[in-house]
This record gives sequence, C-alpha cells and structure tokens, in this order.
Amino acid sequence: MKRQLDRVFQPNAIAVIGASNKEEKVGFRVFQNLLQYGFKGSLFPVNLKDADIQGVTAYKRLRLINDSIDLAIIATPAYTVLRLIKECGEKGVAGVVILSAGFKEAGKIGETTLEAVALLAEMYQMQILGPNSLGFIHTQARVNACFAKTPINTGKIALIAQSGALATSILDWAASENVGFSFFISTGNMLNLGFHDLIDYLMTDPQTACILIYMEHLSEARRFMSAARAFARSKPIIVLKAGESLEGEAAAVLHTGKVTGSDAVYSAAFQRAGIIRVHRIAQLFHCAQAFSMQPRPKGNRLAIVTNTGAAGILATDYLIRNGGQLATFSEHTIVQLKPLTTPLWTNHNPIDITGGATAEDFAQALIACGKEVNVDGVMIIFSPQYNIDATEVAHAVVQAAKQLHKTILAVWMGGDSVEEGRRCLEQGNIPAYHYPESAIDVFVQLFTYSKNLELLYETPPDIPETFSRDYEGVKNLIDHALEENRNQLNEIEGRKVLACYDIPIAPYFVVHHLEQATKVATQLGFPVAMKIIATSVYHKSDFGGVILSIYTEEEVVEAYETLTKNFMQHFPNVAFEGILVEKMSKKRYELFIGGKKDPTFGPAIILGKVE
Amino acid sequence: MKRQLDRVFQPNAIAVIGASNKEEKVGFRVFQNLLQYGFKGSLFPVNLKDADIQGVTAYKRLRLINDSIDLAIIATPAYTVLRLIKECGEKGVAGVVILSAGFKEAGKIGETTLEAVALLAEMYQMQILGPNSLGFIHTQARVNACFAKTPINTGKIALIAQSGALATSILDWAASENVGFSFFISTGNMLNLGFHDLIDYLMTDPQTACILIYMEHLSEARRFMSAARAFARSKPIIVLKAGESLEGEAAAVLHTGKVTGSDAVYSAAFQRAGIIRVHRIAQLFHCAQAFSMQPRPKGNRLAIVTNTGAAGILATDYLIRNGGQLATFSEHTIVQLKPLTTPLWTNHNPIDITGGATAEDFAQALIACGKEVNVDGVMIIFSPQYNIDATEVAHAVVQAAKQLHKTILAVWMGGDSVEEGRRCLEQGNIPAYHYPESAIDVFVQLFTYSKNLELLYETPPDIPETFSRDYEGVKNLIDHALEENRNQLNEIEGRKVLACYDIPIAPYFVVHHLEQATKVATQLGFPVAMKIIATSVYHKSDFGGVILSIYTEEEVVEAYETLTKNFMQHFPNVAFEGILVEKMSKKRYELFIGGKKDPTFGPAIILGKVE
Repeated sequence: MKRQLDRVFQPNAIAVIGASNKEEKVGFRVFQNLLQYGFKGSLFPVNLKDADIQGVTAYKRLRLINDSIDLAIIATPAYTVLRLIKECGEKGVAGVVILSAGFKEAGKIGETTLEAVALLAEMYQMQILGPNSLGFIHTQARVNACFAKTPINTGKIALIAQSGALATSILDWAASENVGFSFFISTGNMLNLGFHDLIDYLMTDPQTACILIYMEHLSEARRFMSAARAFARSKPIIVLKAGESLEGEAAAVLHTGKVTGSDAVYSAAFQRAGIIRVHRIAQLFHCAQAFSMQPRPKGNRLAIVTNTGAAGILATDYLIRNGGQLATFSEHTIVQLKPLTTPLWTNHNPIDITGGATAEDFAQALIACGKEVNVDGVMIIFSPQYNIDATEVAHAVVQAAKQLHKTILAVWMGGDSVEEGRRCLEQGNIPAYHYPESAIDVFVQLFTYSKNLELLYETPPDIPETFSRDYEGVKNLIDHALEENRNQLNEIEGRKVLACYDIPIAPYFVVHHLEQATKVATQLGFPVAMKIIATSVYHKSDFGGVILSIYTEEEVVEAYETLTKNFMQHFPNVAFEGILVEKMSKKRYELFIGGKKDPTFGPAIILGKVE
Repeated sequence: MKRQLDRVFQPNAIAVIGASNKEEKVGFRVFQNLLQYGFKGSLFPVNLKDADIQGVTAYKRLRLINDSIDLAIIATPAYTVLRLIKECGEKGVAGVVILSAGFKEAGKIGETTLEAVALLAEMYQMQILGPNSLGFIHTQARVNACFAKTPINTGKIALIAQSGALATSILDWAASENVGFSFFISTGNMLNLGFHDLIDYLMTDPQTACILIYMEHLSEARRFMSAARAFARSKPIIVLKAGESLEGEAAAVLHTGKVTGSDAVYSAAFQRAGIIRVHRIAQLFHCAQAFSMQPRPKGNRLAIVTNTGAAGILATDYLIRNGGQLATFSEHTIVQLKPLTTPLWTNHNPIDITGGATAEDFAQALIACGKEVNVDGVMIIFSPQYNIDATEVAHAVVQAAKQLHKTILAVWMGGDSVEEGRRCLEQGNIPAYHYPESAIDVFVQLFTYSKNLELLYETPPDIPETFSRDYEGVKNLIDHALEENRNQLNEIEGRKVLACYDIPIAPYFVVHHLEQATKVATQLGFPVAMKIIATSVYHKSDFGGVILSIYTEEEVVEAYETLTKNFMQHFPNVAFEGILVEKMSKKRYELFIGGKKDPTFGPAIILGKVE
C-alpha cells in the first residue's frame, strides 16, 4: 500500500485525461497547475481533438502513451469515467484522481457507475481519489494535481478535506495568513481511499507535522480509529466535524447522502483516539499553526506578558473561562520581572510591563517566564504604542524564544500597522494572532491534546477475580422474552439480568394482594417504593404506576389501591402480574446506563447523570 | 451640560498646551492630528519656548490668547497639570483633555493632585477627560484631539474606551476592517466625565447609531444604568467588560486601583439596562458593524443560503449550539427556491444552491428568503468556485437586499481573493465576515438585544393585596440581635423574619429533652429533620448538627443523641438552646435567596438553585 501510494503521491509520470486549452475547463486549470508548480517528472495531456495542450504534445488515448504512468487525472464528464477507469487499469496506473462530478445527481445510474468503478479499481488494484474531488497537492514533490486557483505555501500541515468547496476557501484563507502545507488532499466521495489510508500514509511523511481534517462522515470507523490512535501518539490530528446538531446532521445527510451517526459518539471516539476536535473554522488553522511551530505544553499554566494592562485582564478572563490557569512565579523569576513592571506589581500573572516597555523589556520578560518551572506556556501580547516599533519587538521575541523550550504564542493586537510584526514572528516559528482570545483558544487545545495523549496510554483495569458473570442465565432470560415475541425485558427480568452480572439492587418482593404488601413493606423496612408489574407495560410513571417514598403501613394501603386503580383504568385488558415492593435507597447520584449500536462506530455505552 | 459638552466636542477654538515641534512628543502628534484632520475652527498652540508650532504662531501662556477657548488639551508632564487647570478655569474653558499620565505612579502626591484638579474643575464648572487619556476624535466635526497614529474612518459607531492602549489597537483593527466611527473617546482615569455623561451626550448625536464601551470599572452605577436604559431603548450599547474572572478582577484592580465589584451583578445589571455584553474583542466590531448597517431581527429564525453544502452544515451546527434556530419555509417560498437548488432538496434550511450557482441565483434566493414571514434574518455564505466572481456576487446581493427589510449578514469565505467582495458588501451596508461562526455570533447578539429590549419595558407585578408585611416585627427581631452585639440572626429568628413576610415554612417545634422530641416528631408526622439550636453557631452541617430524613421514633432517639454528642464535642462552652424538629418537605426545587451590597451597584438580590 505504502509503495503504491508513493507512486500516486510522488509520481514519475502523470497523465491528465481531459487536459484542455479552454480556460473555463477544469482540465485546463489542473494541467496549468501541474505545469506551473514545477513538477520534475513527465506530464502527458490526453485530449481527443487538440494536438498539443498548453504547449505539451497531447495523446488521443491513454493507451497511446508509451511510458508507464503512475497517476492519472480524469477531468472529463461523469459518463466517460467508467470506460476511462478500465483503460487506466489496463495501462497499469497506480492511482486515479477523478475530478468529475455529477454522479450523485444522476441518481440510480450514477450509483451503479460508481459501484462499477469501485469494482474495477479493486480488480486492477488502483487507488481512487474522488469522484467529485478537487484533486491533491504534494508541495515537497511539486505535484499540484488540483484545479483550485489559490497558490499554496510549503509547510508542515497536511489538510484532508471532505468538501472541495470548503477546501477552496481554506486554501484561500491559508494563503492570506501565510500558513503552509505539506499535503492538501480533497477526498471527494471517497470511493476507495479512506481517511485511515491517508493517515497511515502521512504517518510516514517526514514533512508532515500535523493533520487537519474536515469531516462530514466516516465509513470505516474501526480502521480510522486505529490509524488515528497510531498517528496521534507522535503528531496531532485536528478535526472539524460537521453535523454536530440534529439540524446540521440532517443537512449533512442531504449533502453527502450518508447517515453520520451520533455526534456524541464521534466526540467520545475522537477523544479516545487522541484527536483534537475544533468547532470553528478559524481554529483549524490557528491550532495547526501552533502545532507545527511550537512544542506542546505539559499543563495548563500560562504566563501572560503584555504592554497593555487591559489586554492582560481580558486574556485572563478568557483563559479562566476556558479551563486554563494563570502560572505562579517562584522567587527567582519575580526578582527578574520586578524591574520590568510597575512599582505596584503584586508578583502575579498577568505581567503588565506597561506602555513604556522596550523590545528588550519584552525579550527579558519572555526569558524570565520561559525559564520558570511553574510555567507551561508564555503568551506575549503587544499593543501598538506611541514610540515603539511592532516589528522590532517581534524580532526581539523571536531571538529570545530561541533559548526556551516552552510553548510560546504571540498576539500582535491591531491591523495593518502590526502585520509585518506578525509575519516576522511566524517566520521565526512563533504563531501570531490578532486577538488574545484566539491565542487562548489555541493554548487550551494544545494542553487538551497533551491530556488526551495520556488517555491514549490508559488501559481499562482488569476485571476483578471475585466478579462472576452468569452468561447462561442472561441468555435464558433473553431467549424467553424472544420466544414470547418481546423485544424488551420486563421489570423483574431486568433485575435478574443485573443480578447475573453481580450488580447490587435494592431488596424487593412481588406481591399479589394487599396484606402481603404491608407485611413485605414492614419486613423490608420503611420507606419503600411500589410499582405495578405488567410485562407489556413499560413507561409506568406516565400513568401513575409508580409510587415512591412510602413511610407507613397506612400509606402502603393507600398506594396499593391507587396503583391498582390507575392500572385498571389505563390498561383494562392487560393482565395484572402483581405489585413490586422495594426498599427505597438513599441516592447519592442517580445515573442511567445504556447501550446502543451507532451506525458509524458500532456498539457504544452511554452513561449519564439523571437531571 | 449638553451645551457645555457641545463646546467640548464641537469646539470653535482649541488650545493645545504643550504643543510641540519634536516628533517624539505627544504634544507633537496631537497638534499634527488636529491640523491634518481638517478642523475648521481656530487652533492655538501653547509652548514656552518655540515661537511657532508646525507653522502656527504659538503662545507662551494660555492667558495670552485673546480669543475665547472652548477646549484645552494638556500634553505636559503631570506636575504642571494642577497649575494649568487653574489657568484653564480662569480663561473660561469649557473642557480639558488631560493627556498627561504618571499620577497613579506618583503615589500619594499624585492622588492629592488629582483631588485638587477635580475640585478646581467643579469650581470652574469644567469638563475633564483624563488624565491618562488618549484624547478624543469627533469625525463629523473634524476634531482629532487624540495622539494615536492610526487613521480613523467616519461612520456611525461611537467608541468609549477605558484603556488608551487597548483603544489604539481597536482603532488599528477598525481601520484594517473599514469600520468607521462617529466618536472615539478615551476616558482615561475618569476624573469627572463619567460613562453616563458621555452616553447622555451621544444620545442626542444623530450620527451615532450605536455605542461600544470597553469598561474596567464603573463608579456611578445608578447614573450609568439610567443613562444606558434611556439610550438602549432606541440604539444599542455593546460592552466588553474586563475582570470577569476572579483572576481577571484582581488584575483589573491592579490596573485601575479600583474594586470592580461582582461580575455576576454587572451581567445582571447590563441585561436589565438592555446592554449587549460581548466576551471577545473581535465581537465588539462585528456586532457594532451589524448594528450600524442592518435592522435588528425580531426573532432567532435564520435562513442560510450557500453555494457550499459544507459551510451550510457548519453554520447550522454553530447556530443551534448558540441558541438560534433554522427558519422554516412556507409553500410560496419553497416554490421559488426549488429551481435554485438540487433535485434532492428537502425544502429545508440551509439552502445549498450548489457550486454552480450564479450571482443571479444568490440574489433570487436572498429575495425569496427575505420575503418569507417565518424568517427573521438571512445569512448568505459565498465560497470561491471555479467560474464565479466574488465581487459580482457581492454586487448582486447588495442590489437584492435593497428591496428587503430583514437582517442580512454575509460571509465571504476565503482570504485576499474575496476581499474586494467583502468591501463591496460593506459599502452596500451589508456586514461581511470571514467565517460563518463570526456571523452567527453577531446574529445571536442581535436577537438577544431584541429580547433584552422587551425586558426593558417589563415592570414587576403589583404586590398582591392579600400580602401583609410586618415591618415592626422584623425590626424588633433585628434590633434584639443588634442589642446582643450579633450581626447574624439565629435559626429561630430567621424563621420568624420569613413569617413576618408571609413566606410559608415547614411546621417545627423546638424541644429540650428526648421525650419531647419523639412526641413532637409523631405529632408533625414522619419523616422529620432535626437540628441543633445555638445562637452563635451557624454552619451546623459542618459538625454534624443537622440530621435529615428521620422516619421512625427509634431514629429520633438516635438522632437526638448524635446531635447533642456532636454539639458538645465541638462546642463544649456554648449554651445548648434546644433541638429543632421540623417536618421534612418534599422538594421540587432547592433554591437559595440572598441579599448583598455590591460595591458598584449597591443592593443586589441573589437567587439560585442549590446543586
């Protein structure tokens, strides 16, 4: 697989089927991108009519090319794709990028075509990206097999996007913010190359420091989890998952035609796999930038250095609200910081080095905080002042940061006047933000990743030896219910299942007449609870079939009458099977536990507090 | 006041004391700003040494100017200010902007100087902005009495900032984002011009559509609330308040030297005054822009039109998470939208008009949604596609919006390639954001303001006639406690106070020996609670002085013994005053109610749920 994907992503020869001389065509842009991006291997345009494409000799058919082809890109209409895939297979192509769209819109015919394409791909062992893909870019190998217009900078971030349109915007933002990429991969409909294949492949890429994923749905959850866990141990994966709300999920189903499964299960799975989940598009870059530039913090203790008291306060508020904490300083650090701040300084974070601070003051404060053992990260907030140059401060911070091994984040507050400063910081590998809040969001994500990583190495404790499970007993109870054509257990059966797993329950009796009830209640000890038992009746509280907190014999009599009356009134034709009397237990927590089969992740356990 | 502030903010003649020819001086910048901004009145530089300042004839002393002066700006060191204020007073100046800083740093001397300045200002009835102010800008009157370097655009937003340094950054951001202002006022230390004075004044300014405030502390809460309530009825006030967390509050105290008071009380007060509180700096502009450009929505039902399914899903997720809802469409609207979207469309929001959408498609979808009665606002999300021009779509949207009266927000996703489109939208009065999340944040703030406005007109219901208050009884109870030098009531007294206000409490007795306890418990009916009574002992639960849920006579005996044992063990020298036996009440909610005197807002009532 690795070797084959190498042929796809670092090809020696690429054929572009549908390469064009007409500017408005996708086949024009992708061929131009390939040409202009400086690809070192061979490029073969395939076009039925034109003899050359953008100055390169064209072939009428793929099979007419004599050389071996590693990667084929298809930019022709949907109806041509099936035949072309066969041709690619016969030619021994390693992978195909299908830029063509319009399969889903073609209804049943489109679906059948895709099925056939998938079968052919399997037969010929070809990797398929798409259809409906924007293509991919591998910056190091100088392969721009993508029809987006936006230029892309080289960097350490790999971006995998399940929406081409969103990816275009992401690349556009990234270009404006000087964010660079190792890979950009637009998956399109994910016919056979899955997230797990891409993650596994990127794990071996030394250029990639972290992976960003825009995800709408996941097909092979188990393989994804295993790939992600392996990758996340060394490098972070940041996911923006759409369809979090029920309304959003409905829209996602419409968009992709797939059921996404419960969002809560996604969140839990991501956390267990060490994946960072973000909820705003902007956080995707902000986090990625920080991860690709900075070491991650060991904890959540931040030192804040600023020349504007106000920004320090706002940053503090936002840090605390989002689960971080202010670092405290040891005596040695305080001595070093003292001369940099005001006489009124109380030795606490944030450190206001005041409006008069020089570039050197910023550098010294950064070094003092960065060397403090109680500090996990340092945030430098610069605000333009009358007699200080934003870029000069940036240079000083970059220099000072070289001797430190802590997470450093910069906030250069303002617009165009501090833009050069921000650029200078990022060239020096210090991520620089416009607002303190954005930097704090990132710091929180960084230490959350650290925390999640610890979880990755956690294994559940062994089952205690004294624990006994009566599988046979459970099986009999369920078989019995199934024989009676029931898909739910009744109250008593439920209790028996719990008993089979050694889960303690409050003592109880089932009674069939009043005298028995009062006798049993006294025997159990007050207070007790009483419930109607009837196998086919489940939501007992709804019709007054449950009475709690019964303290006296008189109340038992009353409860017995009320329960039977309510039951007969609502279920005149259902057999009465008795009344359950149980001891009330004093509750510390009221929890519910459930199991469900998630369409994406399979069996899931739900545990929660009853509100 | 209004007339006097008119003289300050729309002066005919301005004197700049400390105007300078030296570029590094504050007095240089402020004078240059005044000159270059196109002020139409007379400008008088005052400088002891130079004969002219930046080409304008200078005066050695303020008193040597023959003309009447409306506004004086002081840009000289702190120690000169007191004398200069006196001179200003004698000259009949209406207002003074003190740019000078360094009072707080001067300790006791600084404080005394400020006190004297305040006294003189009162004597001469002068309005003072500062000290430690950055100055102010009134764009319409072409007065730039401020020493910030950033250019400022004319617009409808008034910005009041309690931190000069932060304000510099805010102006800088605003310039980069094409946000314009009617007023910018840096309050500095707020010696005598308070927020309420400024709000009252801005209420009469037709150029101002909304007020932004960066606030660290409030001195005259009552006057602020009354000014804000009056203003907020017609135009919004948006506040970014620092010191929300305890840590942030501590930093704010250090920064301003003032106690800020409880943040929860600020929030409650803001809400009652119809003020919008934001928590991120970026939201300040984003909201202000929307308020100054768009009508506010009547409800929270948003229609989302997009050419990228993915963005629609992400926007939906974020909308739902933040309390908004997706609008539903009536038959007529669905008929109009149908041809614009895919054959798979299910008539629901968000509306994916697909990657092939033209500018005209965007316009039509906007009009259809904007005319739908079930829609309170429309969000248009544009994502760059292969064959569509971002600016052309922006123009079409601006044209279409002209026939609508709903809130319209635009998101042009991407970087530089869509920048012109964003500018074009904002010129057409449609706020345009980079990310869907930012636009949703704004939409949520807009409808929250609408909701808060309704609160403004709410008055508490009349006190029912049957309600009786026994003031005399309460007074006696409190007097009695005070006579005994206590500042807390004991359990029994507390119950009596509640009774004086007709607040029902569970029936109880105080007993002094065991037999009495069992008798009383039976009489009240089980279950009961038992508590130690001792006037000087308040936190009874802490030492086991409270036992709840006692169901039987045996348990009463046990409880009595435990309580007396615990009490004697912990308070061997405190007099035993008996044991309270009361009927347990079944709880629906467990609430606490309290009163406190907030240092800023005065009497406050706290009501909450016990967790």
